Amino acid sequence: MAQPITDTSKLCIHTITVKPWPIETAIDRFAAHGVSGMTVWRDALQGRDIAATGRRIGEAGMDVVSLCRGGFFPAETEAARQAAIDDNRRAIDEAAALGAPLIVLVCGAVPKQPLVLSRQQIQDGIEAVIDQAAAAGIRLGIEPLHPMYADSRSAITTLRQANDLCAAIDSPWVGVAVDVYHLWWDPELEAQIGRCGEMGKLFAFHICDWRTPTEDLLNDRGLMGEGSIPIRQIRGWVEETGFNGFNEVEIFSNRYWAGDQEQFLGRIVDAYLQHS
Amino acid sequence: MAQPITDTSKLCIHTITVKPWPIETAIDRFAAHGVSGMTVWRDALQGRDIAATGRRIGEAGMDVVSLCRGGFFPAETEAARQAAIDDNRRAIDEAAALGAPLIVLVCGAVPKQPLVLSRQQIQDGIEAVIDQAAAAGIRLGIEPLHPMYADSRSAITTLRQANDLCAAIDSPWVGVAVDVYHLWWDPELEAQIGRCGEMGKLFAFHICDWRTPTEDLLNDRGLMGEGSIPIRQIRGWVEETGFNGFNEVEIFSNRYWAGDQEQFLGRIVDAYLQHS
Repeated sequence: MAQPITDTSKLCIHTITVKPWPIETAIDRFAAHGVSGMTVWRDALQGRDIAATGRRIGEAGMDVVSLCRGGFFPAETEAARQAAIDDNRRAIDEAAALGAPLIVLVCGAVPKQPLVLSRQQIQDGIEAVIDQAAAAGIRLGIEPLHPMYADSRSAITTLRQANDLCAAIDSPWVGVAVDVYHLWWDPELEAQIGRCGEMGKLFAFHICDWRTPTEDLLNDRGLMGEGSIPIRQIRGWVEETGFNGFNEVEIFSNRYWAGDQEQFLGRIVDAYLQHS
Repeated sequence: MAQPITDTSKLCIHTITVKPWPIETAIDRFAAHGVSGMTVWRDALQGRDIAATGRRIGEAGMDVVSLCRGGFFPAETEAARQAAIDDNRRAIDEAAALGAPLIVLVCGAVPKQPLVLSRQQIQDGIEAVIDQAAAAGIRLGIEPLHPMYADSRSAITTLRQANDLCAAIDSPWVGVAVDVYHLWWDPELEAQIGRCGEMGKLFAFHICDWRTPTEDLLNDRGLMGEGSIPIRQIRGWVEETGFNGFNEVEIFSNRYWAGDQEQFLGRIVDAYLQHS
């Protein structure tokens, strides 16, 4: 079991966690609460000067941890798959402009399309953009998603699969983003986190909690401590691999988005210190 | 890939699939549509003479395939765990009265309780009732549930785990119920179905489909053909093990329950023949 967390030096928050706020507000308020890193969702950059936004994050004393998100490679037509690759190339340009060293990949899936085909299209799509990512110095983190998203969001649903895919691609620029929400139920989780670390592929660590009952498949994630995920135990497994990156709070929640974001941010910091 | 299905000789439907109907109506209408087997949910037996209901199913020309459901063994207190065991003993009595050769086990989980502890309580609970099940000639089928139910319904979320649990318990009375809804996303599914068959543990096979989008975590299952599950392919893997039992249609659906059940039953039979 990991030691309790005593400060916010490893605390990163995703812009989408406080979705109602424009990124400029998020930067100011995160910094005021002692948050040390930001992961930026691409929608938060709409209409902004991306490089200037990245500088603003740095000037507020925070690291840009990653850009969310690339991926969604599978598609029914060659043209749509090429469009996905093109979009991932744009994401690499955006990450470079922002100063983000990592892009998180939500790999994609197509309803009714065989998962094995989607998995091949994912590998093909990632391989198509590696050279550009390498040239830009941007790493790509495959995020295995919860199996409840296997129909339309990710044909990669376990850490074992993500590790296997990394092994198959075999590039220093391609690794894994481990999110407790997607993976906590997996009886192989400890072993696969260990394997991921041994492979040098553990690029990011995302936290939140699983509420009971969960009332929405997408947007009912809980604050740390509200649910069933043994976050501290999983963090311990992650840290045993030598990982010393950020703990990234990524919460999609209609209920929290509907409330006061400043109050929510305070609760996030408290929950981070008490339950992560 | 399995051969297309050409008749209803292996078609079983769960009473909960047509939840608005009393079981007497379900028996009559299933028989009229050529359905060959029924899996009976315990709620459908409330206030009935169980043995008489079982005879009525037989007289309508159908087999009683299983009783749903036992399980829910994990609990926070010793008293609650004993109560769960007692309830499973009653389920065995009910199955014997009904003439059901199998009880499906939804194993259970407790929010915030470590999954490893719940899994031990599941094993302990099953082992506590095996002797009674054996004496009654009733088999117990562990049903691994989708990982989205790991918080409160089942700490057993993969077929590999269910197989491992069967191996640990090592009783001819304990096997597995394979439900495509819970397991379709698993990259190990084909291999673990093969293993389950080799162990002689493949006791039941449940079908339905995964809709996109799925709007409710519990009650938005689809008719065969409506979604992403490769039902025929999975049926092929199941049949390759030598399984020659029923294909059981188990659909929880607020949308279908809200409609005309006779029309729905017709659609089930059509979908079964076309998409299973």
